[in-house]
Amino acid sequence: MDSTYVVGIDVGGQTSKIGVVDARGTVLAQTVIRTDTYAEIEPYIAELAEAVKKLIRESGTEGKVRGVGVGAPNGNYYTGTIENAPNLRWGHHKVEFSKLLSEAMDGLPVALTNDANAAAVGEMTYGAARGMKNFIMITLGTGVGSGIVINGEVVYGHDGFAGELGHVAAVRNNGRTCGCGKTGCLETYASATGVARTAREWLELSDEPSVLRSLDTIASKDVYEAAKDGDKLALRIFEFTGKILGRSFADFVAFSSPEAIVLFGGLARAKEFLTEPIEKAMNENVLPLWRGKVKLIYSQLKESDAAILGASALAWEL
Amino acid sequence: MDSTYVVGIDVGGQTSKIGVVDARGTVLAQTVIRTDTYAEIEPYIAELAEAVKKLIRESGTEGKVRGVGVGAPNGNYYTGTIENAPNLRWGHHKVEFSKLLSEAMDGLPVALTNDANAAAVGEMTYGAARGMKNFIMITLGTGVGSGIVINGEVVYGHDGFAGELGHVAAVRNNGRTCGCGKTGCLETYASATGVARTAREWLELSDEPSVLRSLDTIASKDVYEAAKDGDKLALRIFEFTGKILGRSFADFVAFSSPEAIVLFGGLARAKEFLTEPIEKAMNENVLPLWRGKVKLIYSQLKESDAAILGASALAWEL
Repeated sequence: MDSTYVVGIDVGGQTSKIGVVDARGTVLAQTVIRTDTYAEIEPYIAELAEAVKKLIRESGTEGKVRGVGVGAPNGNYYTGTIENAPNLRWGHHKVEFSKLLSEAMDGLPVALTNDANAAAVGEMTYGAARGMKNFIMITLGTGVGSGIVINGEVVYGHDGFAGELGHVAAVRNNGRTCGCGKTGCLETYASATGVARTAREWLELSDEPSVLRSLDTIASKDVYEAAKDGDKLALRIFEFTGKILGRSFADFVAFSSPEAIVLFGGLARAKEFLTEPIEKAMNENVLPLWRGKVKLIYSQLKESDAAILGASALAWEL
Repeated sequence: MDSTYVVGIDVGGQTSKIGVVDARGTVLAQTVIRTDTYAEIEPYIAELAEAVKKLIRESGTEGKVRGVGVGAPNGNYYTGTIENAPNLRWGHHKVEFSKLLSEAMDGLPVALTNDANAAAVGEMTYGAARGMKNFIMITLGTGVGSGIVINGEVVYGHDGFAGELGHVAAVRNNGRTCGCGKTGCLETYASATGVARTAREWLELSDEPSVLRSLDTIASKDVYEAAKDGDKLALRIFEFTGKILGRSFADFVAFSSPEAIVLFGGLARAKEFLTEPIEKAMNENVLPLWRGKVKLIYSQLKESDAAILGASALAWEL
């Protein structure tokens, strides 16, 4: 077998991470450029292409790179475009991302998808879902993202936007307002921001003592630290968050009957507090035939590399 | 092109319908045998095979039949088995249906799936979903069944049992008890039996006049007739049913982003009362990017032929 390589790019609002990756998922070299200094797409693409070329040269993989995989907010796999991505300064209009980058890279093929789908491909190629043909990747970060794999392929749907499981209804009535304009969305409860929101709401609703009361602002990390110290309110917040997640997971199981649900992202670090309530609620809400059968597992990708690995994995399919 | 044919078999609790079908979806010949007179699988398979052979002879398609497709409760596409099917007298244990039938048919290949998946394949092959690669078929009958098509293929999931959308949570708290042992399942509200249940509940809860009060027992058909006569309570029952369906459909859209949702089954005949509330609730509950974009359509298969056509369509893939 030829030893070939791929490039993975994780486009974030502030920075874009670039890595050269081998078939075993080792990041040979990586670098970072700013995203947020560019108001227009053209100069951003020019610098990105330069940085990729330099990294390829420096890692000694010239002529051996098969393609470039990109994970970006609202990246559309079918069209290679980024649309309506409020966190990207140049992302307000439709941007022909794959085409522009491929041209700037002398025709090297480019595949694009959103961050959560990229994470799913990464987990399937190098991580906890290796060998699995049917699983659902849930990313618990600022929001809740998802990448659904059926028969070994990411589900993109009719228009390329499938897998928005952060916006299913976790709570049907009087649910929390979501950034998307709806109410009760899963991500308003089960994301890092959702956990912090639960903490603020619950502190307001009772006088129960908690170390969280002493903080000016509360982030999910604070709730996690408090739970580790045995804070009862913080522990109940994770129990509640797990229950909300598990109930929704049960509905996802009814849809695609996955072998596993794979959790990833900052909030997934709280697995010691989340696993039990998630599994309990999931098993209480699935049909008997699935009870105790769907695995709940956690990403095995090193968090600092995961975004690059996920994006890079796309390029193997080019 | 050779003119080839397929056989479709719809296995129901009382009867099994058999048809010989051509590539355009014309049922050339059909017949029926009893299912419920057999307590054991072997004599049932023997009679079924006899009936199929006779039908093939009579329709002049001997030697031109490519395979047999079977739709049956709890039919598993992967294993060719029927398991835990309470409505089939011989279905309480695991039955190697495909293997037994194929042997009895001198090795003719047999494909098996559940009724709702068969309906989805039928709609894709001969009906309203022709040419569609991504759609969700919802069957509104005694229960609520579903067949999910992604990238032109039915989703069977890890174990062959995917697509149980009748058992997602339509109501999270204090929901109706479902036959599956859970509460709040979509099918407790949005099936034919669910509609009748809504009628009985609502009649009990108020003194509002309604023609339904004069009936000893209420079936969904009665509610439909009452709605056609302008009965206000009956009209509100369909509005409520449509809302419940539309809200759940919105979550399905977030999962697989289908081009359309296709409705089928007895209750789908009430489309004049269901379409508006379903579309309203669906559009209120999807992300803005899907608003007004997902089609709601109704099966185009003749109801008397639909089950045979759906099952037969499976055999084209053999």
